[in-house]
Amino acid sequence: MRNTLRLIALSLLATWAALHGAAAQDFSAEQATAKALIETAMSTDLGYEIIESLTTEVGPRLVGTLGDRRAVSWAEAKLKALGFDKVWTEPVALQGWVRGAEQARIVAPYDQPLQITTLGGSVATKAGGIAAEVIQFESVDDLMVADAKDVAWKIVFLSQRMTRTQDGSGYGVANRNRRLGAIEAGRKGALAVLIRSIGTDSHRLPHTGQMAAYEPTIPPIPAAALSNPDADLLERVLSRGMPTAVSLNLQPRNLGGVTTYNVIGDMTGTQNPEQIVLIGAHLDSWDLGTGAVDDGAGIGIVTAAAKLIGNMKERPKRTVRVVMFGAEEVGLIGARAYMKAHEDTLDNHIVAAESDFGARKIWAIASRVHDDKAPVFADLMRVLRPLGVNYRGNAAYGGPDVGMLAKKNVPLASLMQDGSDYFDLHHTADDTFDKIDPADIRQNVAAYAAFAYLMADVDVNWRAANTAALNN
Amino acid sequence: MRNTLRLIALSLLATWAALHGAAAQDFSAEQATAKALIETAMSTDLGYEIIESLTTEVGPRLVGTLGDRRAVSWAEAKLKALGFDKVWTEPVALQGWVRGAEQARIVAPYDQPLQITTLGGSVATKAGGIAAEVIQFESVDDLMVADAKDVAWKIVFLSQRMTRTQDGSGYGVANRNRRLGAIEAGRKGALAVLIRSIGTDSHRLPHTGQMAAYEPTIPPIPAAALSNPDADLLERVLSRGMPTAVSLNLQPRNLGGVTTYNVIGDMTGTQNPEQIVLIGAHLDSWDLGTGAVDDGAGIGIVTAAAKLIGNMKERPKRTVRVVMFGAEEVGLIGARAYMKAHEDTLDNHIVAAESDFGARKIWAIASRVHDDKAPVFADLMRVLRPLGVNYRGNAAYGGPDVGMLAKKNVPLASLMQDGSDYFDLHHTADDTFDKIDPADIRQNVAAYAAFAYLMADVDVNWRAANTAALNN
Repeated sequence: MRNTLRLIALSLLATWAALHGAAAQDFSAEQATAKALIETAMSTDLGYEIIESLTTEVGPRLVGTLGDRRAVSWAEAKLKALGFDKVWTEPVALQGWVRGAEQARIVAPYDQPLQITTLGGSVATKAGGIAAEVIQFESVDDLMVADAKDVAWKIVFLSQRMTRTQDGSGYGVANRNRRLGAIEAGRKGALAVLIRSIGTDSHRLPHTGQMAAYEPTIPPIPAAALSNPDADLLERVLSRGMPTAVSLNLQPRNLGGVTTYNVIGDMTGTQNPEQIVLIGAHLDSWDLGTGAVDDGAGIGIVTAAAKLIGNMKERPKRTVRVVMFGAEEVGLIGARAYMKAHEDTLDNHIVAAESDFGARKIWAIASRVHDDKAPVFADLMRVLRPLGVNYRGNAAYGGPDVGMLAKKNVPLASLMQDGSDYFDLHHTADDTFDKIDPADIRQNVAAYAAFAYLMADVDVNWRAANTAALNN
Repeated sequence: MRNTLRLIALSLLATWAALHGAAAQDFSAEQATAKALIETAMSTDLGYEIIESLTTEVGPRLVGTLGDRRAVSWAEAKLKALGFDKVWTEPVALQGWVRGAEQARIVAPYDQPLQITTLGGSVATKAGGIAAEVIQFESVDDLMVADAKDVAWKIVFLSQRMTRTQDGSGYGVANRNRRLGAIEAGRKGALAVLIRSIGTDSHRLPHTGQMAAYEPTIPPIPAAALSNPDADLLERVLSRGMPTAVSLNLQPRNLGGVTTYNVIGDMTGTQNPEQIVLIGAHLDSWDLGTGAVDDGAGIGIVTAAAKLIGNMKERPKRTVRVVMFGAEEVGLIGARAYMKAHEDTLDNHIVAAESDFGARKIWAIASRVHDDKAPVFADLMRVLRPLGVNYRGNAAYGGPDVGMLAKKNVPLASLMQDGSDYFDLHHTADDTFDKIDPADIRQNVAAYAAFAYLMADVDVNWRAANTAALNN
């Protein structure tokens, strides 16, 4: 009994320590500095100006195009001009692909042009295009259980609508159609696939995006997205129950092997320069817009945040590194290259975060650290509350590029932006600078600056169990 | 003194009679019928269904194109199917024009594609396009006072923004640039003109629209509109103070003489069938969208309103006529043809109104009748108040097509729609059926039905001074 009581008491103490011991570390000095940094960030439009510069002077920058080359030059020059201590590029090799002519029409029972855009990686139709009867499924999952004889020689239309959410969770669901539509339609002998745009707007501006790679055993078929109003039109025509045919001409082409670059800039730490706080974004964009919200915003936000830290009289102990990933849109290829190039030093990566979910305000911050350290992280980031940013658990995704660093045990953070209207613009011609609100960008820069500064200055082993805190 | 008092008394009596005599006429029976008609209208989606049919089965219908021919066939068939007593067409002759290839890019100091659309009536550039330095003016008025030597051999860019208003008053101001830009730039030796779209949105969908006819003594130069985000981009590039050049390729062509038609349907009156209450809209549309808000909505609204009157057990005394005007967009040519074809019977036109300001709710009704009869009209239309429609004066514009009937002393009414977002869509590819709210259309149909019924049934001479009412 006594032993039992003693065990219970010890157990309670351990639990309390796990929950509260972390908070016992005193970071009030660092937090005061972070608060001052937030004030500085809220009084400058540097982030906004960087987005303006990239979208005005470079614009569209699909990997493999001249725009991408110009973006890399712009990025290197910009980081140098801003006084980063070290600026360099790292090559990223990939297979290039570019859009060509793209037209579609309903040709029966009525005649109407359709606004479409080729999906990234699609093969071309034959020269001059094709025309065939249309068969509609709501989703690729419905297509997968259809009878091949109903699908063969037809153009498959996947009509599923994406749901608007704050956190973008509607994307993953609808995105299956874009990724897998051509594979599954091709498997059943279809001639082509048209999907409803993966987007929440109702404008005649279709959403492009990358398909999954074709499967070697299935004939590759061309794929395009209809704008939402055009998908509505095709649904209305099909609802009349008459045979409905569409003509489709897509002339994208493969460029073969091309090279782009990750562009990297360091603001060197004062005591542990080899230890890295990585804040990233991606430099490449789709070709239809000028890549303002995807991901010029991220580039502006993390670059400005690092620059503000670089400006400090007393810089943090560790290095704050900006990584502008290349070739994100076409399959996270720059991120893989970064992971490979730095595989020997990933243990020195204290934490990684990425801004790639538009240009709206951050409403939450999440961590992905050792569970014992989550309360420390949460307590530290109370400094972001005046910005409207609250802690939201220890299951951070990190971002498309840095997310894969979790496999190598790199701690992650997600500074979660409000994505309610992100998919109105995502991968469309409408992704342009006029959509950026400078006040929202200031808030993002302030949050990233405070976050990166704190991670670069406080002494916490985010990977390890909480013994250190208990011993304090 | 006694005579003076007597004169004052008579004068007061006359004033009272003028103000209130009209109201002394008792239209309560007609108003009760109108109220019942409103209830019926609010419970049917016929108007919405007509818009759906036109935009789905026909779509774009620029005069001179196959779409326009199909629209005329659709309209005749629709009016017949709805049981109009008399359905016919009247020819409208004009010079046709169609859009061709259209591309533009900024080529110096940066390289970026621009989203543009050719303005209606523009000449082509030379084959393959032109490239020249850009000179910016805010408006055509600023251009008109510029020195020709600064303008010659350049591409003029007019950057004025349209103001968002409920009543569309921002349109007239900005529209001067579209109408006169090519003439005034050509006068000073420019090679082409680019205008900021006459529109209130911020999407990559430029707004087309008709230019004023070229002046015979000035070399005609090509003209196009930039989408608002592209105009923003060009402004940002120009603001850097470096020589800025744009390439421009426009290949529209003239079709020569073409014929379209006004399509007319009558619901014949029971006592005075020769007397006409005209409710109109225009059948043609620009080619970029499917003409949903401009002016499929108007077609659906007035057609459904007349159909509901046709369905009545006791129809009104006079004929309710739907006129679907042709060739409105390219210069009100169908309206001129109607006026000419009916010049001998315009005295029998009791009143004319037109629905051509989008698809939002009506918030006011105005008249253009003899001043003495305005109070009668206002009192009669109290029946629309439960729909949120209040009387708003005796200076009605009537609409683009019927407005010109005022010259021939035809009384007019304006059922004024909320146009706050009309110029987000106007003349763009985004003018599609998904933008139509069925509840708004029901309210429009109800208001038009009640208005047309009352005008077709009450005995008021809207053209004459108020003696009739005083004699009652």
